[in-house]
Amino acid sequence: MNSNLQEYSHKRFNILTGEWVLVSPHRAKRPWQGQNEAVANENRPSHDPDCYLCAGNTRINGEVNPDYKDVFVFTNDFAALQTTSPVFSIDEGLFKAESEQGICKVICFSPDHSKSLADMAIEDITKVVKTWQAEYELLGSNEAINYVQIFENKGAVMGCSNPHPHGQIWSQSTLPNEVEKKDVHQKTYYDTHKSSLLGDYLKQELEAKERIIYENDHFVVLTPFWAVWPFETMIVPKYNYTNISELSDAESIAFADAISKITKAYDALFQVSFPYSSGIHQAPTNGEDNTHWHWHMSFYPPLLRSATVKKFMVGYEMFGSPQRDITAEQAADRLRALVV
Amino acid sequence: MNSNLQEYSHKRFNILTGEWVLVSPHRAKRPWQGQNEAVANENRPSHDPDCYLCAGNTRINGEVNPDYKDVFVFTNDFAALQTTSPVFSIDEGLFKAESEQGICKVICFSPDHSKSLADMAIEDITKVVKTWQAEYELLGSNEAINYVQIFENKGAVMGCSNPHPHGQIWSQSTLPNEVEKKDVHQKTYYDTHKSSLLGDYLKQELEAKERIIYENDHFVVLTPFWAVWPFETMIVPKYNYTNISELSDAESIAFADAISKITKAYDALFQVSFPYSSGIHQAPTNGEDNTHWHWHMSFYPPLLRSATVKKFMVGYEMFGSPQRDITAEQAADRLRALVV
Ligand SMILES: O=P(O)(O)O[C@H]1O[C@H](CO)[C@@H](O)[C@H](O)[C@H]1O
Ligand SMILES: O=P(O)(O)O[C@H]1O[C@H](CO)[C@@H](O)[C@H](O)[C@H]1O
Repeated sequence: MNSNLQEYSHKRFNILTGEWVLVSPHRAKRPWQGQNEAVANENRPSHDPDCYLCAGNTRINGEVNPDYKDVFVFTNDFAALQTTSPVFSIDEGLFKAESEQGICKVICFSPDHSKSLADMAIEDITKVVKTWQAEYELLGSNEAINYVQIFENKGAVMGCSNPHPHGQIWSQSTLPNEVEKKDVHQKTYYDTHKSSLLGDYLKQELEAKERIIYENDHFVVLTPFWAVWPFETMIVPKYNYTNISELSDAESIAFADAISKITKAYDALFQVSFPYSSGIHQAPTNGEDNTHWHWHMSFYPPLLRSATVKKFMVGYEMFGSPQRDITAEQAADRLRALVV
Repeated sequence: MNSNLQEYSHKRFNILTGEWVLVSPHRAKRPWQGQNEAVANENRPSHDPDCYLCAGNTRINGEVNPDYKDVFVFTNDFAALQTTSPVFSIDEGLFKAESEQGICKVICFSPDHSKSLADMAIEDITKVVKTWQAEYELLGSNEAINYVQIFENKGAVMGCSNPHPHGQIWSQSTLPNEVEKKDVHQKTYYDTHKSSLLGDYLKQELEAKERIIYENDHFVVLTPFWAVWPFETMIVPKYNYTNISELSDAESIAFADAISKITKAYDALFQVSFPYSSGIHQAPTNGEDNTHWHWHMSFYPPLLRSATVKKFMVGYEMFGSPQRDITAEQAADRLRALVV
């Protein structure tokens, strides 16, 4: 790797979104007098009578959770998207708006309130993977739904309002901004090269070996060349499947293994239950030809230097471009050393 | 205004960036059990011997601040961008990077450590405006600099590491992502209509009257139709100047007045020194024809419901699109009532 990338300010291109990230490697040594985050290493009980996600407890809308034993899915009680709202469109000069239909679900990863994905057995994570697959298919088969966004907000610093291990699925009628960008860039590449953009990128990464964190038979965990968040990573399937429902049983277990490895490494990094938002980007369920899609899962963790100091994406980042100090290669080195 | 916009999920189009924001008006009533922010209403002294921005104090690199009386500008001691780094370019298959040159400055708004823009006299804010103008011209005249980003991170929650009233200026050789988007959309519109996109939008807003918060002879403060942050606002000049250095003296004072009005309204909203990131988007300094630019200043404040509960732009927002609960019209109503 060109040593300039480890020493001088530069920008790197995100092949999936067409956007740039500003990298300032020389800046990692700046002192910090700003906000410190609270460390959330409390010992939680396996069942919390006040948790609205624990088995057998009553939710705010009066519904009682079943006595679930592994994964439990329900429709979000405060869904940002609904299927019942009217269809409308506003196109008045420079005011442009459109109704959006959708279904939002919550998915509890485990009945055990004290756990996170990092603490769960690969076998149990595989059940989460299977549920994601089933929900992608179920929601995707709904006529009103053309895209299914699976994600998790982990930790209070990531806006998570309940420490019970859970994620969300927001599915909707149109493609959100980030998905639209990746759709366009993957399609353009596929049309030109007749091969998957991310598949070809993965080949290059496996040769370069500088940003690979972990690899099993079916998946690679790496720090993307254009990573924005300090310890951002991506789980990429070796075969260019368009969506998670295409995985075989063995591949589903290998995916769970990759999730287990990276979340454990994260927890080891600053000795804290590591906060992040994660999400799966995959083919829209719009019935179109989506062969250009190569699905992947990304982790966007905010912590920068320790359990209490995060990277703020603020002024310059909001008005200019995302900016980072430590390089993707440095981050990969540190995480790789923590994979056990 | 179509009442559907106040009741049902929809997305709104940002004419400047070409991106969408998801609005879920029915969701504003959801309970909050998540993270609370610390309230920063401490009484600060007018001079703090430990503050590296106060007059006469020594900074980390050993330099001593002058005994400044109003505004003080210096080059950032931990600049993310420098002019001394080598020029290089990497184009290896799907790895694409380019060196980036630049100059980063810090601008102290006042020697008074206890103040913020909201507490300053319009006369003193005008001095800040004059400094922004001078810096835009000075940095812009440097051959290596093609864009000048003026911004402020206010409050610990916005990553501000020092409460002394100050902002920053990051100037660089290429256009950052957000500026690039606005450049393209303004240019396309200008080429088609031979008039300013934002100027025409402003006319429509002044007729609709639903999102206007304040207006003086030369400026309008409004909540943009496509606002992302709960109480996001924009200061738009009535005349379509491409950059702030084109303002007359009277217009500079009117700009300072607009800043004063909106920052005071913000502080009144939740009875707290209101955190935000603000920034000025204006014409690049690349020597090209930038008549399509209509400069403007935006405020992106994170607080949602109170001094302690902010809006988190996390999972869905990072992987999908930005999402908001209260509508732009509701936010404008509340802020308008607080302008004195
Ligand atoms: O430059 P500062 O104040 O040290 O740092 C702050 O603003 C920068 C520009 O928005 C951000 O990159 C940093 O994350 C933030 O903490
Ligand atoms: O749905 P929750 O967990 O109540 O809310 C959390 O995730 C949502 C989706 O990313 C965000 O819009 C909220 O800001 C965040 O607090």
